[in-house]
Amino acid sequence: MTETTTSRLRIDAARLLRRLEALAEIGAIEGGGCCRLALSDEDRHGRDLVVGWMRELGLAIRIDAIGNVFGFTPGWERRAPVMTGSHIDTVRTGGRYDGNYGVLAGLEVIETLHDARIAPPRPLAVAIFTNEEGARFQPDMLGSLVHVGGLSLAEAYAAQAVDGPALGAELARIGYLGEEQPGFVTPSAFVELHIEQGPILDAEGIAIGAVEHLQGISWQEISVTGQSNHAGTTPMRLRRDAGYVAAATAAFLHDLAEEMGGAQVCTVGRIELHPNLINVIAARAEFTADLRNTDEKLLLESEARLARFLTDIAARTSTKIETRGLARLEPVTFDRGVADLIERIAGELGNSVRRMISGAGHDAQMMARICPAAMIFVPSVKGISHNAAEYTTPADLAAGADVLLHTMLSLAARR
Amino acid sequence: MTETTTSRLRIDAARLLRRLEALAEIGAIEGGGCCRLALSDEDRHGRDLVVGWMRELGLAIRIDAIGNVFGFTPGWERRAPVMTGSHIDTVRTGGRYDGNYGVLAGLEVIETLHDARIAPPRPLAVAIFTNEEGARFQPDMLGSLVHVGGLSLAEAYAAQAVDGPALGAELARIGYLGEEQPGFVTPSAFVELHIEQGPILDAEGIAIGAVEHLQGISWQEISVTGQSNHAGTTPMRLRRDAGYVAAATAAFLHDLAEEMGGAQVCTVGRIELHPNLINVIAARAEFTADLRNTDEKLLLESEARLARFLTDIAARTSTKIETRGLARLEPVTFDRGVADLIERIAGELGNSVRRMISGAGHDAQMMARICPAAMIFVPSVKGISHNAAEYTTPADLAAGADVLLHTMLSLAARR
Repeated sequence: MTETTTSRLRIDAARLLRRLEALAEIGAIEGGGCCRLALSDEDRHGRDLVVGWMRELGLAIRIDAIGNVFGFTPGWERRAPVMTGSHIDTVRTGGRYDGNYGVLAGLEVIETLHDARIAPPRPLAVAIFTNEEGARFQPDMLGSLVHVGGLSLAEAYAAQAVDGPALGAELARIGYLGEEQPGFVTPSAFVELHIEQGPILDAEGIAIGAVEHLQGISWQEISVTGQSNHAGTTPMRLRRDAGYVAAATAAFLHDLAEEMGGAQVCTVGRIELHPNLINVIAARAEFTADLRNTDEKLLLESEARLARFLTDIAARTSTKIETRGLARLEPVTFDRGVADLIERIAGELGNSVRRMISGAGHDAQMMARICPAAMIFVPSVKGISHNAAEYTTPADLAAGADVLLHTMLSLAARR
Repeated sequence: MTETTTSRLRIDAARLLRRLEALAEIGAIEGGGCCRLALSDEDRHGRDLVVGWMRELGLAIRIDAIGNVFGFTPGWERRAPVMTGSHIDTVRTGGRYDGNYGVLAGLEVIETLHDARIAPPRPLAVAIFTNEEGARFQPDMLGSLVHVGGLSLAEAYAAQAVDGPALGAELARIGYLGEEQPGFVTPSAFVELHIEQGPILDAEGIAIGAVEHLQGISWQEISVTGQSNHAGTTPMRLRRDAGYVAAATAAFLHDLAEEMGGAQVCTVGRIELHPNLINVIAARAEFTADLRNTDEKLLLESEARLARFLTDIAARTSTKIETRGLARLEPVTFDRGVADLIERIAGELGNSVRRMISGAGHDAQMMARICPAAMIFVPSVKGISHNAAEYTTPADLAAGADVLLHTMLSLAARR
């Protein structure tokens, strides 16, 4: 096969769509979405289906002690493979593309090369990472985090499901507690294909995003203790209103993000007041702060300004404020060379393409700690995500998989 | 009996306390409080107990079509009586004094006069008003509101309990759908004795409050519709964040009350975000606004400024805001003469006394529409109210009942 025929190679879009549909039937929910929580029975059935496809493709299957599943083409023990992959767990009201698309497009790449009898110089691999969503176990991106040594097996096993059981027990129960040591394989490069989970590509009518940056994330839970009192009889100056503290902080964070500009975003998505009654000053408030930036220095600045605001308002309102860090991820800069490659290949294949920043977390950010990595994004209509209405057109799905195919081929040709 | 011996007359504090304790046993909850929701079985048993005491005192008992119970001393059909009274329904986590104290002190006044063989020129009456708390049926102060013609029987009967049934059906079920037309009696004056439900008397160490003003109340429920989106991938300028609107409005209202000063208070006690998740921009927010002032003009100003703020922020955030009025009561100025009388008598009886404003709603504010009315407050320790820990000392309970006794005696001596 000549270089020219290789460059004309395209994945089989119909086959990719059939697999997406078959996987979406497991844990199907109303509206076309999926509920396949990590390490649930649905997750087991989903894994069984995909592992079956890997077997049919003749891949060597390895499962590690955190349940990450890897399918390898021959030679992976001797030479670091080019790896792709994502996850197949979903949130409770998940769509059918988030994660699943990246895994199944990886299979599609391998099957396309297999059908064309092309064996690239380097072996290829497809990974299914455990518990990416964080909907059933915290933290999210847990499988890839363990793979790169960021979390010990003991800590990961102890993670407790929102419905009770420990992660280790659930892993054993569904039969995916494998024998490989986490981190047993280090790829030569890692590329993850994913729907954007944001509105930018769809809004701009661009087919492919070459993702070079991933936002840093700071999550905190903030608990305010004030004093419950009658809303009519307690003068403003005698109040210790925990609800006011929550509201003022949420408004401050919004204004802070607007003032900082650039990539800074701040969200207060959850507020709980107690007793939460119209005519009672709230005794307690719990709320969350979600701060993100692509620049670690600016993210630290936003955290510091929040901390100062909380100190000031606690003094001013005679309330007690406690904060608890729920998650903290530094911004990730992916491998510039891999992002350049994605951008170039996307263009060569005739796609509109732009560089972009990922606002969501992905397994690729963990893999970036151990090898050159980047991501390919395709549009998600209206940016809808974590929702049964999540949708990407078949044409966009095919285009993204073709970019993945040629990016992996190119990476596999490298030393 | 001479004027001098009359002025030395005192109620029997032990008897009053025994009745308070006996009534508190019906619907007793942990911590010494009461759960006797309006028109529940507990309310029926409480009514039966108090009506039994009225009967033992030889009072003529009349029940009207909204379940208000009146006990009269002889002659009430011929001459407008001096009336006292309150309610015996409680909130779900109610104390034992709120309402009950006013009713039972009324009985105590009549029994004291009966024992002393004193028959004042005017007859006396004690009222138990239906559903004052509003904890089971809206609106609150419903029985007294119907009595003064502020709500039709048909509307009141249709009020639906938080647990389902209609008020009319519950009234019939517990046997308190009486035969009298609401408003069948107009007192010559009305005096209600109540615990303060606020911290002022306790904090200042004053025994008696002579209440001449009652705050106006404006309750609104505010619903914001924005758009749910990923907290990481949605730039600030593209957000339609319903949670931010709720927070900014709550903070605005707090600052507005501080800016307006005086008697203005504003409270946002309830906030609900949907989906209420850390990393999702809230699609919807519901929250309540509780605005109060003793001056109707200023209360209207605070409502207008809230409305302007909502219009502006809806435009600025591309959200849709709907408001629903839940309650609107104009400030009440009680009868100055009756308040003066209370203040004078409290002083003559050797009590510390101050004029005050009620921040809570009371049946007396309804009665003020049809006759001269005012209220007597006694301290509630730490201002705790609507709570099992509500507490007033026996000495303060006795002092308040003595002020009620002599105020009623004085009013009953008037033409």
